[in-house]
Amino acid sequence: MALKSFIQVHHDSHFPIQNLPYGVFKPQPHSLPRPGVAIGDYVLDLSEIAKAGLFNGPSLNNSDCFLQPTLNKFLAMGRPAWKEARATLQKLLSSSEPTLRDNANLRQKSLVPMNKVEMVLPTAIGDYTDFFASMHHARNCGTIFVGPQKPIPPNWFHLPIAYHGRASSVVISGTDIIRPRGQGHPKGNSPPYFGPSQKLDFELEMAAVVGPGNELGKPIDVNEAADHIFGLVLMNDWSARDIQAWEYIPLGPFLGKSFGTTVSPWIVTLDALEPFAADAPKQDPKPLPYLAEKISKNYDIALEVQIKPTGQKDSCVVTKSNFKNLYWTLTQQLAHHTINGCNLRPGDLLGTGTISGPEQDSLGCLLELTWNGQKPLSLNGTTRSFLEDGDEVTFIGCCKGDGYNVGFGTCTGKILPAP
Amino acid sequence: MALKSFIQVHHDSHFPIQNLPYGVFKPQPHSLPRPGVAIGDYVLDLSEIAKAGLFNGPSLNNSDCFLQPTLNKFLAMGRPAWKEARATLQKLLSSSEPTLRDNANLRQKSLVPMNKVEMVLPTAIGDYTDFFASMHHARNCGTIFVGPQKPIPPNWFHLPIAYHGRASSVVISGTDIIRPRGQGHPKGNSPPYFGPSQKLDFELEMAAVVGPGNELGKPIDVNEAADHIFGLVLMNDWSARDIQAWEYIPLGPFLGKSFGTTVSPWIVTLDALEPFAADAPKQDPKPLPYLAEKISKNYDIALEVQIKPTGQKDSCVVTKSNFKNLYWTLTQQLAHHTINGCNLRPGDLLGTGTISGPEQDSLGCLLELTWNGQKPLSLNGTTRSFLEDGDEVTFIGCCKGDGYNVGFGTCTGKILPAP
Repeated sequence: MALKSFIQVHHDSHFPIQNLPYGVFKPQPHSLPRPGVAIGDYVLDLSEIAKAGLFNGPSLNNSDCFLQPTLNKFLAMGRPAWKEARATLQKLLSSSEPTLRDNANLRQKSLVPMNKVEMVLPTAIGDYTDFFASMHHARNCGTIFVGPQKPIPPNWFHLPIAYHGRASSVVISGTDIIRPRGQGHPKGNSPPYFGPSQKLDFELEMAAVVGPGNELGKPIDVNEAADHIFGLVLMNDWSARDIQAWEYIPLGPFLGKSFGTTVSPWIVTLDALEPFAADAPKQDPKPLPYLAEKISKNYDIALEVQIKPTGQKDSCVVTKSNFKNLYWTLTQQLAHHTINGCNLRPGDLLGTGTISGPEQDSLGCLLELTWNGQKPLSLNGTTRSFLEDGDEVTFIGCCKGDGYNVGFGTCTGKILPAP
Repeated sequence: MALKSFIQVHHDSHFPIQNLPYGVFKPQPHSLPRPGVAIGDYVLDLSEIAKAGLFNGPSLNNSDCFLQPTLNKFLAMGRPAWKEARATLQKLLSSSEPTLRDNANLRQKSLVPMNKVEMVLPTAIGDYTDFFASMHHARNCGTIFVGPQKPIPPNWFHLPIAYHGRASSVVISGTDIIRPRGQGHPKGNSPPYFGPSQKLDFELEMAAVVGPGNELGKPIDVNEAADHIFGLVLMNDWSARDIQAWEYIPLGPFLGKSFGTTVSPWIVTLDALEPFAADAPKQDPKPLPYLAEKISKNYDIALEVQIKPTGQKDSCVVTKSNFKNLYWTLTQQLAHHTINGCNLRPGDLLGTGTISGPEQDSLGCLLELTWNGQKPLSLNGTTRSFLEDGDEVTFIGCCKGDGYNVGFGTCTGKILPAP
């Protein structure tokens, strides 16, 4: 019989007892942030559960990891603590367990309606890295920016290419995004122009949240990399294509990305995603030994992007993709990141890069969907080449189980005009 | 008459009363880190000066900014607090002021011999950005990596190009650097190889330490940018040229740099550098209005790199350059960084990029000095194309005043073999 909570969870909910994603929230505008897990339409306040002494396993007993304003301390504790917390919480929330179910006072203190809370960034992000792991995205971008002859650079099939992103401008879902200003370049020998970006785009990504991490100089083996990934979030790596195209040679993206990156508030753990594991694509050429893993896993996570233009009531679905479309796995990304000795720290974010699929309606950004603006999308009676002021972009991610979902909720942001 | 301290300062010292650079140190191996300033052969413990109530101006009175394990809180307070601290400390240390001079107990507590302390990173670095601001370096790298036809990309003269670096692997001077392993690519269609980097290099840089910073979405005007720069350090942006050359297309440097970046422990303030201000180079084409500044400043800071091979007694000077060789100013770099709304935070690091001059003996890295290994350097009877295990690399930076120096001390690191 399927696991069931004493809390009513609608069958469409992203947050049944099988999920239990972690976030950080404020129950009141002036309260201190504290960790919580989502259950149905509620947030379970983990600081209250800890204070009640209900985390009583060997790793978490007497720990103050849930009395912190971020999840970093919990993430640093590693998989034994994560497994213990999940077991404790699944038991505590199950329909057959009286401890919380029958304690009105504790329920009152610890279960907060989700629509009353303010979610904040779940971790202090030391560094944010962004990969480029979808072959379809690499091929399309290469064709648009470089040309159709050799759209994918020769290194791409040998290593998971990545760049360092900007950690300071990672914001939580719901934060408005101000249209960036910057330099663009029309063509040929003309001088650059300056102004609000004319090619503002979303990028449909997910990001891994790093667990314990490693010391400088000590790489993480690809077959142990999964123990360093706590879970996943949705991520919108907003991109100004005109700024990016002009600045990125030879050192890569900079101001075209660093004005804002939005993450969803709930970190879905690898443990919750495990039932949705899927084979990773066959890699040809075979990766070098340090990237060759015994078990190579993707996850079957359905992804969707909606745009709601200002003043309209309804959102319009502009693409549907799936996490499975990635060529390089999360564990390969993490192992590659550390092979030179680079240290990862708890709470670091590893973005996948835009997750485009092979079909026209599974492309992960407007650059690809409109082919750099040449083929505008039709959108509820209007059209879009790139994002306009007032557009609200929402990502949704969800795994469909047998009678339940393991979902990510939404990752959303609205475009405000340039200053 | 020149300002003079009651503390004996040798005329060759980098740290006379005119300098007073800030760092963070531990007086004993197990003490908590605390801020200090360098004076001659001593470190003045600012936590003791604060506890003695001697910071009595309007900004610092009752502040706990010097009772912290990093300088971030002091940096966030901005130029009024920095000016006040400098005035207080110059008075307190001057030969004519009895407060500290004649208080044996306080001298005993607050003045620690520099050779007894352990220096640690002076700030918690939220983000580290690396620019590419020397034209000579850009031309040489472009010639080596891309070819002599168009060595400098057309965007270079319009904007200070930069990329996000890795904050986690920034280490303090004296930390050993482990040779990174990674992929390289021999030539043409051959497959990549994997192993210890065969082209390990230093990069002679300096870095600005950010002060108050800005909110997301609110750019800093180029003419106000100096108020957001607390001071400068020496920086060695160690680079694995073989890893870098294979990985950097199309998203820029990643593992070729992220295995370690060394900074010097003492932040020399812009106030101390002001007597050494020098005209910045004329910029042609004229920069766009957001980069056009009323006063365009460089600083006359003599820079030198020494290599000491393992087992040898003496170091060998391999290059001499000067901070003046930068094309883009620090204030232009900072203004450009925020023009898209990107937020800077106190303690962020803005590297200048390799500071190469126009002459063969003023080039800032081995890639340029040996022309990618083709013309090995002679070094005390041995030769170097790139760094070998055991090599110790030391940077020195110093401004020569009238009868005194304003120096940076050294920035050093030794290469250990790959694991």
